[in-house]
Amino acid sequence: MALPMKCFYRVCGFLSSSQLPSHVICRNNATLSGQKDASPRRIFSGIQPTGIPHIGNYLGALQQWVQLQEEGHQVIYSIVDMHSITVPQDPDQLRENIYDMTACLLACGIDPDKSILFQQSSVSQHAELAWVLGCKATMARLKHLPQWKVKSGPKEDGGVGLFTYPILQAADILLYKATHVPIGVDQVQHLQLAQDLATTFNYHYGQYFPQPTAILGETKKVQSLRKPDSKMSKSEADPRGRIDLTDSPEVIREKLKKAVTDSTSAVTYDPDMRPGVSNLVRIHSACTGLSYEEICRQNEGIETAKYKFVVADAVVAKLDPIRTEILRLQNDRSFLDSVLRQGAKKARDIAEKTYSDVKKLVGFS
Amino acid sequence: MALPMKCFYRVCGFLSSSQLPSHVICRNNATLSGQKDASPRRIFSGIQPTGIPHIGNYLGALQQWVQLQEEGHQVIYSIVDMHSITVPQDPDQLRENIYDMTACLLACGIDPDKSILFQQSSVSQHAELAWVLGCKATMARLKHLPQWKVKSGPKEDGGVGLFTYPILQAADILLYKATHVPIGVDQVQHLQLAQDLATTFNYHYGQYFPQPTAILGETKKVQSLRKPDSKMSKSEADPRGRIDLTDSPEVIREKLKKAVTDSTSAVTYDPDMRPGVSNLVRIHSACTGLSYEEICRQNEGIETAKYKFVVADAVVAKLDPIRTEILRLQNDRSFLDSVLRQGAKKARDIAEKTYSDVKKLVGFS
Repeated sequence: MALPMKCFYRVCGFLSSSQLPSHVICRNNATLSGQKDASPRRIFSGIQPTGIPHIGNYLGALQQWVQLQEEGHQVIYSIVDMHSITVPQDPDQLRENIYDMTACLLACGIDPDKSILFQQSSVSQHAELAWVLGCKATMARLKHLPQWKVKSGPKEDGGVGLFTYPILQAADILLYKATHVPIGVDQVQHLQLAQDLATTFNYHYGQYFPQPTAILGETKKVQSLRKPDSKMSKSEADPRGRIDLTDSPEVIREKLKKAVTDSTSAVTYDPDMRPGVSNLVRIHSACTGLSYEEICRQNEGIETAKYKFVVADAVVAKLDPIRTEILRLQNDRSFLDSVLRQGAKKARDIAEKTYSDVKKLVGFS
Repeated sequence: MALPMKCFYRVCGFLSSSQLPSHVICRNNATLSGQKDASPRRIFSGIQPTGIPHIGNYLGALQQWVQLQEEGHQVIYSIVDMHSITVPQDPDQLRENIYDMTACLLACGIDPDKSILFQQSSVSQHAELAWVLGCKATMARLKHLPQWKVKSGPKEDGGVGLFTYPILQAADILLYKATHVPIGVDQVQHLQLAQDLATTFNYHYGQYFPQPTAILGETKKVQSLRKPDSKMSKSEADPRGRIDLTDSPEVIREKLKKAVTDSTSAVTYDPDMRPGVSNLVRIHSACTGLSYEEICRQNEGIETAKYKFVVADAVVAKLDPIRTEILRLQNDRSFLDSVLRQGAKKARDIAEKTYSDVKKLVGFS
């Protein structure tokens, strides 16, 4: 069953600061701690367990997650399985996907000793806080969120979970009193809902939740290898459009060899006129750390077909250690279980404290 | 803060069997065990903690709860505080109301050794199962529930909790795999939603939840003493319209003395033409077990004003032991705490098992 990859808090774009609403940090190469306000940060993000991530997910989000971990912030990453059932799921596949995502996150560099890595459904307080927050949200507010409008179709009908999941997202964030949330531009309005629910809760029950700030990272936008005008996606029918983290070097080389480019046989960076080659340059840059200019200079006079081999070498060099580690971890279920169990325990320690406070504030206890 | 009394699974009416949808038992004087199918029954019902119940709540629901308990079924009664926050609540008042409702239920005859009596928010699985079920419910289905149409006003807007609470009700019932649910006629469509969600879940994941059957009891419809055309209600501005379970004998006598009747000074039962006197006859009947005919015969030739004293004697005789017990229990917080704690433990034992199964079926574990 082909499931779309959904990283619901995704660092997938870069906005100029003039386009940004309040409570959004536009992240360039500066570290968070390098900012003016150096008070302790608690970062939360979630990813849906929808199979093996592709290189677009890795370069767009997961690499940033690892970077935030290495900067020494308190980071909490959740495999948000409760979100994934807002669309139909095969239970056996979902179970596999949870293990696969755990293996992939670890292989990409998430270190359970530095980050809290856990499965959302293991911490009951997500659903409990979502109920409380839902009683403070209005139907009109949710109806106007753009993702509902898109997903619910012209009749604006669909599952109740699909309608209310932004409230569960808000609960995910507020449960850990997160101060910063890496998100993609498509999630800015959902983060604003979380901010508003924090404000509403604080207004009714006294200052309690911090305002979570969005982090929009400058990351490489990775397009499909077959349709370079579209984002690389798990849901694309042609699997040659994407490179999965478990693709073998041979498969990677083959997919890059077949990547759609254009009739000009030269390496230049011009996303509007030459989306295919420019996408390869971006992938190359993201895998090596070289700038677009350096790449174009180094590959001046080389034919596109030959350049694809250069890119393939860079991608294989970047992904092969990750792939090897994923394959190793996939065969060690007991280790994955123990990582998730320990992560859930650490997450629960925070979540229990928060929800216990919420119960007192609301009048349940 | 005057809060409306809400018994969300209320035995408040009697329908002829021809009016009933499937999966509704019309309960007369027969016991459940006297029915054809004598397989074990598990009964669930919930009541919102909205202050001291009045005699209408007692005769309409609580007396039936005690009767079901005494019939030897497995009965589970919940003080559904999570439902109560679908409308604004003062936290201190809500906390008091939870204790008051606990004291009242015990004083009315709920025996924690025979029934499981617990506070809904103490059992996390209610919210968790509600999330799972919400992913199987459609927006269109919820929008057509009559209570949403009434409560959301002409613009059909309101809190998300007010919209989704029928899903939480379904979770309340299914979490305990309840086979029977005492409800009022106004809740028939909500019970049908629970039935449908059980069917949908079973269709997707295999037979798991039993179909819960509604029990509509033949109970006495108690009207306001000031406006005998309206139901007795906590939200009525004039407190003389209702008799609370903690009213002293003097207050009860005074309220009944001032009860609105009509210009005919005789005791007859004619709800359409003589709603005030007929309401007194119903209350009298419910408190004594005498039939309307017996009451009218016994009080033939007695003036209405004098009959009010007779009714007052019957009501005081019925309620005074309950009132005394409520007042005693209200002063024993540690006992109330221990009842709720032990009830939550017993409820959790069932809820944990169910939700653990659900997690496996859905693919979370």
